[in-house]
Amino acid sequence: MTGCKTTYGIRFWESDSSDTMKDIHSRQSSWIYGITLTPPTLGDNIADADRLIHALKAELHTDRVWIELPLLRKLPSLFRASEWKIQCVLFKDRRGYILIDAMPAGDALPVAGMAVDLGTTRVVLRLLDLVTGKTLGETAFDNPQAVIGPDILTRIHHADTAEGLNELHRLIVDEINLHTDGLCKTCGIPTNCVFAMSVAGNTAMTHLFLRLSPRWIIREPYIPAANTPPVIRARELDLHLAPQACVLVFPNVGSYFGGDLIAGILYSGIHNREETSLLVDVGTNAEVLLGNRQWLMACAGAAGPALEGGAARMGMPAGPGAIDRVRIRPDTRQFEVHTIDDAPPRGICGSGLIDLAAQLFAAGMIDIRGKFVEAECGAHLKEIDGVRHIVMVPGTDSQSGKALTLSQIDLDSLIRSKAAMYTILSTIVATVGIGFQDIDVFYVAGAFGAFINPESAIGIGMLPDLPRNRFVSIGNSSLEGATLALTINNCLDEIDKIRNLVTYMELNVNQEFMARFSAAKFLPHTDRSLFPSVTII
Amino acid sequence: MTGCKTTYGIRFWESDSSDTMKDIHSRQSSWIYGITLTPPTLGDNIADADRLIHALKAELHTDRVWIELPLLRKLPSLFRASEWKIQCVLFKDRRGYILIDAMPAGDALPVAGMAVDLGTTRVVLRLLDLVTGKTLGETAFDNPQAVIGPDILTRIHHADTAEGLNELHRLIVDEINLHTDGLCKTCGIPTNCVFAMSVAGNTAMTHLFLRLSPRWIIREPYIPAANTPPVIRARELDLHLAPQACVLVFPNVGSYFGGDLIAGILYSGIHNREETSLLVDVGTNAEVLLGNRQWLMACAGAAGPALEGGAARMGMPAGPGAIDRVRIRPDTRQFEVHTIDDAPPRGICGSGLIDLAAQLFAAGMIDIRGKFVEAECGAHLKEIDGVRHIVMVPGTDSQSGKALTLSQIDLDSLIRSKAAMYTILSTIVATVGIGFQDIDVFYVAGAFGAFINPESAIGIGMLPDLPRNRFVSIGNSSLEGATLALTINNCLDEIDKIRNLVTYMELNVNQEFMARFSAAKFLPHTDRSLFPSVTII
Repeated sequence: MTGCKTTYGIRFWESDSSDTMKDIHSRQSSWIYGITLTPPTLGDNIADADRLIHALKAELHTDRVWIELPLLRKLPSLFRASEWKIQCVLFKDRRGYILIDAMPAGDALPVAGMAVDLGTTRVVLRLLDLVTGKTLGETAFDNPQAVIGPDILTRIHHADTAEGLNELHRLIVDEINLHTDGLCKTCGIPTNCVFAMSVAGNTAMTHLFLRLSPRWIIREPYIPAANTPPVIRARELDLHLAPQACVLVFPNVGSYFGGDLIAGILYSGIHNREETSLLVDVGTNAEVLLGNRQWLMACAGAAGPALEGGAARMGMPAGPGAIDRVRIRPDTRQFEVHTIDDAPPRGICGSGLIDLAAQLFAAGMIDIRGKFVEAECGAHLKEIDGVRHIVMVPGTDSQSGKALTLSQIDLDSLIRSKAAMYTILSTIVATVGIGFQDIDVFYVAGAFGAFINPESAIGIGMLPDLPRNRFVSIGNSSLEGATLALTINNCLDEIDKIRNLVTYMELNVNQEFMARFSAAKFLPHTDRSLFPSVTII
Repeated sequence: MTGCKTTYGIRFWESDSSDTMKDIHSRQSSWIYGITLTPPTLGDNIADADRLIHALKAELHTDRVWIELPLLRKLPSLFRASEWKIQCVLFKDRRGYILIDAMPAGDALPVAGMAVDLGTTRVVLRLLDLVTGKTLGETAFDNPQAVIGPDILTRIHHADTAEGLNELHRLIVDEINLHTDGLCKTCGIPTNCVFAMSVAGNTAMTHLFLRLSPRWIIREPYIPAANTPPVIRARELDLHLAPQACVLVFPNVGSYFGGDLIAGILYSGIHNREETSLLVDVGTNAEVLLGNRQWLMACAGAAGPALEGGAARMGMPAGPGAIDRVRIRPDTRQFEVHTIDDAPPRGICGSGLIDLAAQLFAAGMIDIRGKFVEAECGAHLKEIDGVRHIVMVPGTDSQSGKALTLSQIDLDSLIRSKAAMYTILSTIVATVGIGFQDIDVFYVAGAFGAFINPESAIGIGMLPDLPRNRFVSIGNSSLEGATLALTINNCLDEIDKIRNLVTYMELNVNQEFMARFSAAKFLPHTDRSLFPSVTII
């Protein structure tokens, strides 16, 4: 079966190398400042620390430079050993510049930073050279809090039990430390040369990371403990970095709009452009951000787990053996599937599911309501326990020896998900009084953006029918945003600017939402004129 | 002998209750702010910490309010348990307002602060109620670093040895902790209700307290590690206060002008007055500050240990049995001495020595060079080991049974000290181009100010011959300044203003100093016109 795979041709979505991305990445940071101090004399006898602060204030054109006590202790011997020629590692906090470390000029020790995508399911660490901005290495691991519960809700309830919050906090911090040690070792970077960490996670994960109670996040009126956590030092969380490393945790807009999305916006650069763009990040929730340099409107809604491969009986996360692309030959109606790593098929992931639905619809095998058309499905249709299933892969070709099928129920669920997604998109666009055609760039983040066939997503009416070159897949935008935060100078100004620009819209209080949702539960939509480019055989 | 004590009459020096002092003390602090938060709703759902920060910014008319992570963690449950009515303990740092603690409104727990006079020889702790500004209790102890060396120079050298700095640091911090525990217990204040500490010490003591190397303080060009140490948290030095208590260490102007003097200036209020005042603090060094709201000129010089009772063979620090006042009856030339606590005499302290010299001179028993006049001294004079001594107390009346005497050598030493003192004063006054008569208030700090008879000090030409009501004795001005720092709102603004106003003048590079010193080595001075009020029998 793996032999019948079809390459879908060019991925017409724009990749990370688009001009907008390059534009952002070109803003290089200055973490290291070489400073030559004037040695003191009887006539110029201010103290060592004050001498350095004066020099840094002049260099950085600021009146706010701070040195904490432990670092201050080492300055006198450093200055004299280095003959007053030093280099300084600085981070710009909300309070001003913080001197993180100082060393003799020309010191060859690396100056590294760690960007963290703190996902509910998966965590990614990326080690960076702060001087060049280059990635030194990357590692990913499953969020160990899954032992408490795979979903965030279970974890939030667990945090309410005695020691529950501490336990969840230790689980994630210990695992980050373990993988930090490993990644640093692999890259040949001592952990105490990691001087900064940026952490982008949703609001609940951010709370668990900082050991803040997430209790009120899920209780009306849904209040986080903090929207803008302070920049802390690594030692405050016992992180395996330089103890004085600055840890920047992305702020959130609210309980349902977290720092991961702020990081995504930072990476997309939407907040700096005149034109209006849209950013969608699809997980269990679809999180949507629409706006430009003047305003940013956000909303989030349940897009349904179908898209994460969690709902369909044959659904599975993207991984070896997951069907990620499907094609139905127009002539023979034969199914051609592609699996990840070309492994024998064992399930279907989100992008495969969307492909399958689009192909079934294009072939007339399902109708506009998403129901199987018996006459067109023919032998592919099979009734199991009184429910109709379409056979994607016969038992002879699957990994388990059992046929891989998709039921009407699974399909209904997918239709609801796609309808929810389209409704969220059309609602936010309508709320600000524009149309989809006014969206200059349509960013699609995450695995969803990276792997789905946009033609299929449009074909089933999940995404709007826009010129394909307006879609840009920006990959793991949280990780990229966390990375960017460590490579631009005034990252906190930029991040806080985004946070303050964002207006969050509650979808569940929107009156028109249900009407729009009903209209979107058809393929591609009740209003066919919205999808002129979608054709049916 | 104690029976023949004479009360010298009114102490014409102004006491602490002068108007200028009251003026300063009336500026009460606001450590506690009662805040009633608007409970969140779906339409007003910003996070707990951000809600409080917004409220505090409005209340304090600032855009800089900071809450650190540990405190942030307790806000959600505090807000809900207190029904959104809380009180906040705030400290104004150089970076803005720091929330130190928050508790339910009406909470009865005390909010205390600790003022510390960190002397080389003696340390004084004063526990304050921060709300009322009232003193709760006070304790004093000898600086335990004396086991390393009584003088600061020995300690600085010791700090250069392996673990020497740590040892000195631990000695002082442990002893402060011990006495903090004791004082808090006596006053019924839990140590974790002490939310602030202010520390006024000389530059070297400040360094040892903060575990900063004092090595370069005593080496040309005499550079402290820091002039303006940051405000730290109690936990950073393991102090027995609330771990998050803010510790304000007074900044110094340089190696020889420390935070103790900045504290003294703060207390005197010189820096806020239109009129020009002078402040002198006498210890082993005489430290002098001259100025007004526009400028402050400082200098320090060795006044000689004679004034601390350290040099004379019979000299002793002020303590039970120390002769602190002497009168020579004009008719009989009998010595009338007063001792501290009326104990049997065992030595003579600084104020006694000055009295003695003034009385000897007034009685014509010493000449203008300070040499014993044999004809006038008569039987009081005695030669011991070839050196002439004056007998103050016969053996029959002393504690030891031995006569208490003062040698010509001791007297010469005192004359040098008084000459140094007068020279320092006249040099600084001349440097800024004014005369002593232009000094509106002449503050005399410390035990010297509190105990000496100013008539005697002027009589020997140690202090200038000004109207007596211009002299104000301000006691332990370091301790009072440290206290004041905890009772005024914007203490760091005030302190930094002083620090930045002060110009430090190096006396040992002053050309005219030696000429002035020679002229001052006579009683009261070679230029008698400078001391019109001093009469000789």
